[in-house]
Amino acid sequence: MQLKVQPIDIKVGKFKVVLNNLDAKELGVNPGDRVRIKNHTTVTAIVDFTEDMISPGMIGLYHEVQEQLHREWTETVEVEPAEKPKSARIIRKVMDQQKLTKEEIYELVKDITEENLTDIEVSAFLTASYINDMTEEETEWLTRAMVDSGEKIEFDMHPIVDKHSIGGVPGNKITLLIVPIVAANGLLIPKTSSRAITGAGGTADLMEVLAPVEFTASQIKEMTQKVGGVIVWGGATNIAPADDKLIKVEYPLSIDPHCQLLASIMAKKSAVGADKVVIDLPMGSGTKIPDMATGRKLARDLMSLGERLGMEVDCALTYGSSPVGRTIGPALEVREALKVLESMEGPNSFIEKSVGLAGMLLEMGGAAARGQGHDLALETLQNGKALAKFKEIIAIQGGDPNVTSNDIQIGEFSAEVKAPSNGYIIEFRNKRIVQIARLAGAPNDKGAGVYIHRKLGESVKQGEPVITIYAEKEAKLQAALKSARQDPPLIVEGMLIERLTDIREV
Amino acid sequence: MQLKVQPIDIKVGKFKVVLNNLDAKELGVNPGDRVRIKNHTTVTAIVDFTEDMISPGMIGLYHEVQEQLHREWTETVEVEPAEKPKSARIIRKVMDQQKLTKEEIYELVKDITEENLTDIEVSAFLTASYINDMTEEETEWLTRAMVDSGEKIEFDMHPIVDKHSIGGVPGNKITLLIVPIVAANGLLIPKTSSRAITGAGGTADLMEVLAPVEFTASQIKEMTQKVGGVIVWGGATNIAPADDKLIKVEYPLSIDPHCQLLASIMAKKSAVGADKVVIDLPMGSGTKIPDMATGRKLARDLMSLGERLGMEVDCALTYGSSPVGRTIGPALEVREALKVLESMEGPNSFIEKSVGLAGMLLEMGGAAARGQGHDLALETLQNGKALAKFKEIIAIQGGDPNVTSNDIQIGEFSAEVKAPSNGYIIEFRNKRIVQIARLAGAPNDKGAGVYIHRKLGESVKQGEPVITIYAEKEAKLQAALKSARQDPPLIVEGMLIERLTDIREV
Repeated sequence: MQLKVQPIDIKVGKFKVVLNNLDAKELGVNPGDRVRIKNHTTVTAIVDFTEDMISPGMIGLYHEVQEQLHREWTETVEVEPAEKPKSARIIRKVMDQQKLTKEEIYELVKDITEENLTDIEVSAFLTASYINDMTEEETEWLTRAMVDSGEKIEFDMHPIVDKHSIGGVPGNKITLLIVPIVAANGLLIPKTSSRAITGAGGTADLMEVLAPVEFTASQIKEMTQKVGGVIVWGGATNIAPADDKLIKVEYPLSIDPHCQLLASIMAKKSAVGADKVVIDLPMGSGTKIPDMATGRKLARDLMSLGERLGMEVDCALTYGSSPVGRTIGPALEVREALKVLESMEGPNSFIEKSVGLAGMLLEMGGAAARGQGHDLALETLQNGKALAKFKEIIAIQGGDPNVTSNDIQIGEFSAEVKAPSNGYIIEFRNKRIVQIARLAGAPNDKGAGVYIHRKLGESVKQGEPVITIYAEKEAKLQAALKSARQDPPLIVEGMLIERLTDIREV
Repeated sequence: MQLKVQPIDIKVGKFKVVLNNLDAKELGVNPGDRVRIKNHTTVTAIVDFTEDMISPGMIGLYHEVQEQLHREWTETVEVEPAEKPKSARIIRKVMDQQKLTKEEIYELVKDITEENLTDIEVSAFLTASYINDMTEEETEWLTRAMVDSGEKIEFDMHPIVDKHSIGGVPGNKITLLIVPIVAANGLLIPKTSSRAITGAGGTADLMEVLAPVEFTASQIKEMTQKVGGVIVWGGATNIAPADDKLIKVEYPLSIDPHCQLLASIMAKKSAVGADKVVIDLPMGSGTKIPDMATGRKLARDLMSLGERLGMEVDCALTYGSSPVGRTIGPALEVREALKVLESMEGPNSFIEKSVGLAGMLLEMGGAAARGQGHDLALETLQNGKALAKFKEIIAIQGGDPNVTSNDIQIGEFSAEVKAPSNGYIIEFRNKRIVQIARLAGAPNDKGAGVYIHRKLGESVKQGEPVITIYAEKEAKLQAALKSARQDPPLIVEGMLIERLTDIREV
């Protein structure tokens, strides 16, 4: 069918066109079907319908289709029905819990990467793989297909080490210590990180306080070879792009299918050429790992997938019921990390976790003997080598290497939330703390966040601050404060056991 | 946040807005999140992002949101993040195979009806209910919620009878006989039908050859009370609208979750006030029922759901491996049906199936004694009462009651596909026949379709026609013919058993 082009200057992220109902009927296509649009080049696009926005005889081309056809533009195009992509049948197999072949998984990942699937189809795939999961073999293929969906970094030198945290615990700024510790000991660590989606600050948001974080794969390779490590935003690269597309659909569903979680982590590590990887699995209420059994299974699966991919993977189940350190929000967290690097001044929970994981990497990478990693990591912090290396990393990414913890700008508006009575912190809700930090402006306002004066189990006196909220804008401070008052992130109570003792004494 | 309105004159079928990345970050929302837009009225809308289509400080409002805010229009609106609808959590429960409460199912169906959910969310719900199914109790609530999602018809007189076919067999034009037979015997049958989505002609497409089919619920009631029955398009009514919204997402996924299938059928029957329902379950290759066990289970589930809803349901497992009658496509099927009504001239498969199902309804509705339904139905056909009633139905729907089978216009372009050798039809592929009819223009071109000269098991001589393809446009005839030649819908072979006999005689 010949149709006259009507450009629609809207980007929809996919190849999409709009047909009038009458033409669609004539073509025999339904909404969500595909058509082939032939000009000098051919584009397959997803069809939407309209009764009145597009007249009969016309075809509305969204931005992406226009761009694809652009080079040899004509006023009319030939439109014909196109079959569904093979991936539609492949997704149906996942729903029916039939095992996919390697070729099918590659086809599916290709279509996901190239935006050939509708949201409906990608959502069905993720929902089905959340419910039915995949076999180890399928998960390996999925990971390899994700790696092959984008750019890869290959280093001449080995080993390449890397770390990943599966998230779920607020204030997890350990990468800011681990990368310099590891790189200071001669290992290469090309660390790509994420920005916060639902959190108050991803590692990329934190690092951005100190230096630019958006680089290409080849820049990452070059910088890593020069100074030993980088801390950059993975989203700016074309590394495992299929994964980013899937995350966009997982987010609104609030799911993280097991096989996708595995493939997502390992594809990103494999694509940067990592040989030795440590994975931080925060465990506890509010994290992705409610109990030890779940954590052990995930660790086993990650290690087994690593083996299939030729990577040595070690996992650490870490304490995740409380934030790491005492700060949440980009600038506050960076200041806390810099203080530790400058003077070892800072919370034990933060230092110990960082040193522990860095030590594992030092041992795996051969920079420390078995059992000596922790001590070497601690020493690297104490003797200032980690700080020196961190300055090199900041410099190579284009930041100011002379920055100190005192230079970090924290939001100028602040308010304390005080203890209503003497007692102990008997409940500390990570998710609420994150919500309050986000209401205060984090991660977009780098200076916004929360300082935690008292953590779970600590004692506090009436009127003492339990948290301080920081913001760059007064209205956001007020919104965060209001929320903290309406639904407090922590609960202070007298020690009930002592009271019971009192009763017995009567 | 105050944002300036930029109208986007595109209908997207949902409340949707577009924000610049920078403002979205400032608000702390991600793509797929919701915002509340406050003007004099308040609308909650789904957020899309853009880097460059909408400038910072602006908000793009798609048509539906504009319309909702229209009455009291201002240049700027107040925008704030909104929480996800409760239904998002409810869908997650379906994924985790947790039982839903009645309130949750009503909430979900309300959000589906009101287009408050994204395609991603509805797809996840359908995929999860396809994999995990629902309990009988949940399915009952789902059905009731669908009924309550739209208009209902209540008749003063009872019983109200109705029929439904779950589809999958081409040429299933039996409603054109059943409704007049039943209505001619004094029972009320307010039959709502569908148009073809993937088929070559739904009952509504067929009836439209004879009369208009788009009516409101109250018109359906009034016409049914006057002449005993109607055959109209359900999609033009506001009866069980939630079901139509779900079908739009089921179609691209090619799934029909068991619980949705049950709820979809029964909600539509319940909403028109039916007390006694016969359901036609075509069984055989290419249908939704591959074997007897599946058919019996579906029948039991339908009858049990009917009982919960206070309806008497009977099911007929019917032969579905071959088309019903010899015609496929609106005008051809109508002509075949009219010929039977006029003179009992027509294929046995069509007459027997119609009379059988009509007989069941006559018995259930009390118009025939147990065991007498079939004979009464046949008699009603033979004595012309069914034809007379059909003319009344055509007339009340606004068609010409004097129409005869000879008046029906068939496509002027036609071509025969001939047998390549003497033999028997050893394979007959329903889906291919439907594809060919669709390529020829059905159901949109009413005169397009296929006439079947030889069905499964029948003998044919070399050069005799096996099918004739009809089309209104020559290009479509050629496309259908080409497809039929490339991938024939039926296979003619010599009778192998006879040949073996021959060999033995040697």
